[in-house]
Amino acid sequence: MIQTIPSLLNTLNKEVEQNKFGSEPSELYEPISYILNLGGKRLRPLFTLLSTSLFTTDLEKAVKPAMAVEVFHNFTLMHDDIMDKAPLRRGKPTVHEKWNTSTAILSGDVMLVKAYDLLMDLEDALIKKGILAFNDCASKVCEGQQMDMNFESKKKVSEAEYIHMISLKTAALLGFSLELGGIIGKTSETNIAFLREAGINIGIGFQLMDDLLDVFGDEEKVGKQKGGDILANKKTYLLIKAYETASPKYLEILKNHFEGNSKTTTNKIKEITAVYNNLNIKEITEKKINSYFDKGLKCLSKVEAPLYKKSILKDFSQKLMNRES
Amino acid sequence: MIQTIPSLLNTLNKEVEQNKFGSEPSELYEPISYILNLGGKRLRPLFTLLSTSLFTTDLEKAVKPAMAVEVFHNFTLMHDDIMDKAPLRRGKPTVHEKWNTSTAILSGDVMLVKAYDLLMDLEDALIKKGILAFNDCASKVCEGQQMDMNFESKKKVSEAEYIHMISLKTAALLGFSLELGGIIGKTSETNIAFLREAGINIGIGFQLMDDLLDVFGDEEKVGKQKGGDILANKKTYLLIKAYETASPKYLEILKNHFEGNSKTTTNKIKEITAVYNNLNIKEITEKKINSYFDKGLKCLSKVEAPLYKKSILKDFSQKLMNRES
Repeated sequence: MIQTIPSLLNTLNKEVEQNKFGSEPSELYEPISYILNLGGKRLRPLFTLLSTSLFTTDLEKAVKPAMAVEVFHNFTLMHDDIMDKAPLRRGKPTVHEKWNTSTAILSGDVMLVKAYDLLMDLEDALIKKGILAFNDCASKVCEGQQMDMNFESKKKVSEAEYIHMISLKTAALLGFSLELGGIIGKTSETNIAFLREAGINIGIGFQLMDDLLDVFGDEEKVGKQKGGDILANKKTYLLIKAYETASPKYLEILKNHFEGNSKTTTNKIKEITAVYNNLNIKEITEKKINSYFDKGLKCLSKVEAPLYKKSILKDFSQKLMNRES
Repeated sequence: MIQTIPSLLNTLNKEVEQNKFGSEPSELYEPISYILNLGGKRLRPLFTLLSTSLFTTDLEKAVKPAMAVEVFHNFTLMHDDIMDKAPLRRGKPTVHEKWNTSTAILSGDVMLVKAYDLLMDLEDALIKKGILAFNDCASKVCEGQQMDMNFESKKKVSEAEYIHMISLKTAALLGFSLELGGIIGKTSETNIAFLREAGINIGIGFQLMDDLLDVFGDEEKVGKQKGGDILANKKTYLLIKAYETASPKYLEILKNHFEGNSKTTTNKIKEITAVYNNLNIKEITEKKINSYFDKGLKCLSKVEAPLYKKSILKDFSQKLMNRES
């Protein structure tokens, strides 16, 4: 298998196309193909393949376990979309909208089972280790999602609480994606731990970047309306930081928009963005993102593997850092 | 470990009490304790312990895997209750009523993960086999639930379709419960296959008994209102059989109540029960139940294990057959 990003991506997309999880009843299995084929960057399974490539050239054996990560990720999207009442995912109707909530619950459930099934493609000697790590990660993702929901009704969320939440909801799976490559590559426990840590830190940076792009991204490139998080009153890193650093004047504006019964939604995005600009929230967030990415890359540098192999993974991670969508 | 039913039940209930799946966030983990402590017969984990006892006296090692089956079962209840919009479970508010739908989805998700985690307590050499069998069973349970939902909007469901649906939705897990005991007891593939078949057949009989008790059970003993399935227009074995055997006169009554816009819901239970009585549906169903139980017991008799050990499992299964609730 040639180890360039486009060729690996090609392998993964072929795997998505070919993988038949089941056929009957079609209402259960069609939503799985549907959500997996909505696109997406395949970031997580790519991480697994690139991580595996640090230790072996035989990447074939990593494809199905990598797909387990992708299937699990899409299971969480399917269920999260129900909880968030999201009508669209990547510009297309969400599963609970296209079918119904019951089908979205049940298709998601069977996807979680299929993720475990794909992990069974690990070498026998690695199954226990792989599943235990996956269980740990999967529980954390659920914990993070519940915390995120709790934040909605919480008056004040601290920076530390927020970072903790995203370290579970988003970053744990990126950590597992890299960890899994280490497990498949049969590397040392120390290397595996560095890989996981790298993924977690990159994952936190990745989520903060998401928060940032929602407000300061290029609408066309991001592919969704700017300021969606602001309209949805989401307690993002940007908002938390703004609350933390605002002078009484700006605090008043924040409170008006997020706590009061103000009906000024038309100007909400504009006014809040102005507050962010006045408080240098963009720069503060970028600095934070960089610090997490740097920490992640530092962890990667500690993994004992050939430098030229690590550079592909490093370059890929850096592209994530500089992404515009 | 003493191998009487009450002592095994005691062991399982202690395990339920002691098992802490997690603590934070509490909204995620409290519903798990809640649903597991609503009671229930612990039928499935008992099956696993009794099945294990055919091959070994060391039942300690079967307790956590048996709990995996119970946790999985309760995960399906938690999610099914959302889909069925059920307000009560064993006389208490369902999780989505007591908390909310999002929490019921997410707690259920993490329960499925925890079921896998409990299976990791299997001996290393048995993990792959155990998880593969569990994956197969779990997929079937989801398929059966989706079929059951599809039946709601289907005009005609045949007896064969119905039996196929319950063989997936209900019976597959009873099959796995017994199969798992065979895996833990390291018995032959032939024995394991007979155990699974026994569980599936007993499971089908068990579900048909459920259908029967809904109409002909003792209200106090069953603990819920008689005729709930009739009011909910559920396509049970009884209704399918009535449609199949009804003369034009009775077909008219059935159509009136289940297909027309008749408002006669007050007399619905009474009138449908009368139709069932006239068509001997009770006897027909009892005959069917007996045939599945007999098939199940025949499979059990083919399992190579000491007769006196098999008799406990056989007696327990027979009690299920003669249950009044």
